[in-house]
Amino acid sequence: MNYYARPLSKLIDELSKLPGIGGKTAQRLAFHILSLTDSEADALADAIKTAKHEMRYCSICGNLTDADPCSICGDRTRDRSMICVVESPRDVVAMEKIKEYHGLYHVLNGAISPMEGIGPEDINIKSLIMRLQQHDEIKELILATNPNIEGEATAMYIARLVKPSGIRVTRIAHGIPVGGDLEYTDEVTLLKAMEGRTRL
Amino acid sequence: MNYYARPLSKLIDELSKLPGIGGKTAQRLAFHILSLTDSEADALADAIKTAKHEMRYCSICGNLTDADPCSICGDRTRDRSMICVVESPRDVVAMEKIKEYHGLYHVLNGAISPMEGIGPEDINIKSLIMRLQQHDEIKELILATNPNIEGEATAMYIARLVKPSGIRVTRIAHGIPVGGDLEYTDEVTLLKAMEGRTRL
Repeated sequence: MNYYARPLSKLIDELSKLPGIGGKTAQRLAFHILSLTDSEADALADAIKTAKHEMRYCSICGNLTDADPCSICGDRTRDRSMICVVESPRDVVAMEKIKEYHGLYHVLNGAISPMEGIGPEDINIKSLIMRLQQHDEIKELILATNPNIEGEATAMYIARLVKPSGIRVTRIAHGIPVGGDLEYTDEVTLLKAMEGRTRL
Repeated sequence: MNYYARPLSKLIDELSKLPGIGGKTAQRLAFHILSLTDSEADALADAIKTAKHEMRYCSICGNLTDADPCSICGDRTRDRSMICVVESPRDVVAMEKIKEYHGLYHVLNGAISPMEGIGPEDINIKSLIMRLQQHDEIKELILATNPNIEGEATAMYIARLVKPSGIRVTRIAHGIPVGGDLEYTDEVTLLKAMEGRTRL
């Protein structure tokens, strides 16, 4: 038996499909939505529709955008000699927040993962290679995929493909996070931190 | 600076207004919504609009409903001699789930709380008194407000108002929850459990 009237149980049902939102949370959110004004509820619903219908992938870098090319690819002030390769649009935002990188990006929208059946052809690697062939102003490719098995495999794969072309291929440093604790750092990270030590 | 394109940042913004949804969670939910199919995203947006526009309060009991009177007030098989007074529509659902209560409800949609400036006139007490006056088939009023300061005050207030009419007024039992632990039960609950002890 359904204890709530249909429109409310439908809303709870839809909300509980979201990641990390269980039944109780969905119920709490649904009651909150009912307590909003009509225009506030409409603003939320419209934001969902608008975002879903207007956001697309940039045809150059693969980043999420509402305009093609995206604002970064279209920005003539950025350094066109560098491309930073990341796994997702969220990683672009993380990089942009440090405000130190002024080159371009290439968003793979995934990483090679044989376990999940994701091969090189399933992510934006082909478009990266074509981009490198078409633009000979590109001097450096920074591989900023995540430091896990899939990210490392993806970085290795791309490095092997690109190196023969003579473009400088680099990988972001692994090491102890700033504010981190040597005692609680895992062995692999500590090993990477030792290997990547720099002269002061 | 806004790192996401406008439709996406607007969606993150709207989602982060929901209770218990912080910036990072809103971002995760927004990306999840972008990964849905168009029809899935529309289903979520439409569920919000439909619930907000179709759900209203029952003119008899004050419960949330999409039809007036609500399905419980309109159900002629229910015992019309009992009314269970609860604070919120969620409490109605909790009571219905035990499948043992077959009377009617009255939803106060709040509790008396001088601290928050909520007086008896701000919750559905007047409609309850009118209901009791109009329907002399009502023999028992079960006060099932929450066992906290506001709920107790509300129960006491209603009991004082209704008692002179001769209607039986009862309060749900306080005690140790089933599966609970005597050792970890607070003193007030334990005292209430002792006071409310029943003969075996």
